[in-house]
Amino acid sequence: MLRMTSIRYELIATCPHTGARRGRIHSPNGVIETPCFMPVGTQGTVKTIGSEDLEALGFQLILSNTYHLSLRPGSDLVERLGGLHKFMSWKGAILTDSGGYQVMSLAHMRKISDEGVSFKSHLDGSEHFLTPERSIQIQGELGVDISMALDVCPPYPCTREEAAEAMRLTHLWAPRNIAAKREHQAVFGIVQGGVHEDLRRESAAFISDQPFDGYAVGGVSVGEPTEMQYPVVKFTAPLLPVDKPRYLMGVGHPQDILHAVGCGIDMFDCVLPTRMARHHALYTLNGRVNVMGKKWAEFDGPVDEGSVFPATERYSAAYMRHLFKAGEPLAGRLATLHNLAFYARLMQEIREAIETQSWPDLMARYANA
Amino acid sequence: MLRMTSIRYELIATCPHTGARRGRIHSPNGVIETPCFMPVGTQGTVKTIGSEDLEALGFQLILSNTYHLSLRPGSDLVERLGGLHKFMSWKGAILTDSGGYQVMSLAHMRKISDEGVSFKSHLDGSEHFLTPERSIQIQGELGVDISMALDVCPPYPCTREEAAEAMRLTHLWAPRNIAAKREHQAVFGIVQGGVHEDLRRESAAFISDQPFDGYAVGGVSVGEPTEMQYPVVKFTAPLLPVDKPRYLMGVGHPQDILHAVGCGIDMFDCVLPTRMARHHALYTLNGRVNVMGKKWAEFDGPVDEGSVFPATERYSAAYMRHLFKAGEPLAGRLATLHNLAFYARLMQEIREAIETQSWPDLMARYANA
Repeated sequence: MLRMTSIRYELIATCPHTGARRGRIHSPNGVIETPCFMPVGTQGTVKTIGSEDLEALGFQLILSNTYHLSLRPGSDLVERLGGLHKFMSWKGAILTDSGGYQVMSLAHMRKISDEGVSFKSHLDGSEHFLTPERSIQIQGELGVDISMALDVCPPYPCTREEAAEAMRLTHLWAPRNIAAKREHQAVFGIVQGGVHEDLRRESAAFISDQPFDGYAVGGVSVGEPTEMQYPVVKFTAPLLPVDKPRYLMGVGHPQDILHAVGCGIDMFDCVLPTRMARHHALYTLNGRVNVMGKKWAEFDGPVDEGSVFPATERYSAAYMRHLFKAGEPLAGRLATLHNLAFYARLMQEIREAIETQSWPDLMARYANA
Repeated sequence: MLRMTSIRYELIATCPHTGARRGRIHSPNGVIETPCFMPVGTQGTVKTIGSEDLEALGFQLILSNTYHLSLRPGSDLVERLGGLHKFMSWKGAILTDSGGYQVMSLAHMRKISDEGVSFKSHLDGSEHFLTPERSIQIQGELGVDISMALDVCPPYPCTREEAAEAMRLTHLWAPRNIAAKREHQAVFGIVQGGVHEDLRRESAAFISDQPFDGYAVGGVSVGEPTEMQYPVVKFTAPLLPVDKPRYLMGVGHPQDILHAVGCGIDMFDCVLPTRMARHHALYTLNGRVNVMGKKWAEFDGPVDEGSVFPATERYSAAYMRHLFKAGEPLAGRLATLHNLAFYARLMQEIREAIETQSWPDLMARYANA
């Protein structure tokens, strides 16, 4: 069955030094300049900040979580209220994950079969059954710009057999995700295969052959930077179609993003800048700084002169430390604004470096970030 | 000893229907149009919002708490960093309380003598001794525009003897507060006397006779509206000097403010709009609304058409309810912005009603608020 899609990828420039691509995604809710970073708005809100803040920071695309929204307030309610954009008053584009990652993380509370995943809600223990069809339906009800196919993320670390089984189910489900699409619903496929190059090659070939609207590299773990991820990204990214967006899920640290962009990845999401912010860690050109540290107690300036942003520049490190020490809600907000501004600038400078063919200068600038 | 003061009260207009005054306080950090409401920024921050938000809401004067700031981060540190305005990056004026109210509230952890109050910190149990001299010194270190004299608030309810004793100490300390002033430090005196008209008259006469820069009515309880407060305000306010600002401490509900302005009060502070916000209660022209209520679950508009404000108008009641249900930090922020916008508009309309001699129209408009 042929269905019109609602997004289009435009390749603008390539980097002469790396595999980096400068592009543009045309979506129903505006243009998204790539490479881009998506702030994570798990429950229909990027924690501590409003849609007006995201607009001021210059983001054009955010990520929200199907699992959480489907349980509360419910995708049917969101649809009746006009969709997620209207519900959260966000004028930019939205990508939702499939819900699979959260469901797989429930460990003892879920069971996977060829048909789908049965699980119990973390909120009230109620039983649910998630299938590719249901995930795509929920995302359709949310009315987002980009839906993600339901896949199976293997646990980390995992055996080769576990990685292969996750890949098998992911491939089995891929056509079912596409068949469940509403007209104009854009769905991205996900490549699995763990750290095994042969599995990744097999998965990239299979998934790329499916008529998805974009292609993601899944199963690369969220968290601390690990050089283990780098080879996976390096040999997988170039296997994905050049005329569609490429998305590395759940990544990551600034260095991880720089590496992956160099491999040809266009899109990223990660909880790090927002979660770290709530744990008083500020991203700077000189690395992540713990603003709760005693050294900032009387520091009447920013933690890093090179990392000053309009949204928070009026506040000193001493004041931010005081807010965290005193348990004030403003602390998390200011740190979130700071970190997202850092990530927004990083992506802006990545895009400029590709356009101006100055990638080595960019790498030097972020060498200690 | 004669000391220059740094604030000046200008009477602009009086209401033909009531005792309301339209005035202006000239302070080192700008003009304050009165009657005015001060948002409460206990720990050097109005909970959930930044100084840029307070500016956008149009506030010109905020209140902060000497007790909290003196314990954390310490008034000496704030002074070394250039004072509280600079510390919290607030361009408007600041009034601090004396610390007395919090110390008196410590109940079993404090002891009052003619010399002052000994108490233990709620943070670490460390012992402190608060005197008029020390309170004024701390407020001088914070560098605020208006300092409050250390007084004694009687418990509520209290016997006539307790009210009289609180008044005796308040009067005993009044000259010591003034003698401790830095040059240009503006200090307001406080009238005590409980609900007893004769004590209030005695106190108003005594305190008014002291060279304070403004005069406050203290000991009127924070919280639910009580017609019991009204007679106290009614007979006390007119006893205060006409050429200085008059401040009713810890009040209150919109109806309480309207009543007190009508009695000739110029300044108010209260935790209600900010505290209620964090408990999902929104002020509207139709009363306080619990946005967590089931009736708002699918309500695609504001809780009250007449109470829509720029800072939050893009968000529906359904979305705010979702944020509160999901425990999202943005919930408290949006509700705080809403409630403070309501109070800012109330005060703006009070000032206009005095100027345009349309007090009855104002009372009709807020009849159900």
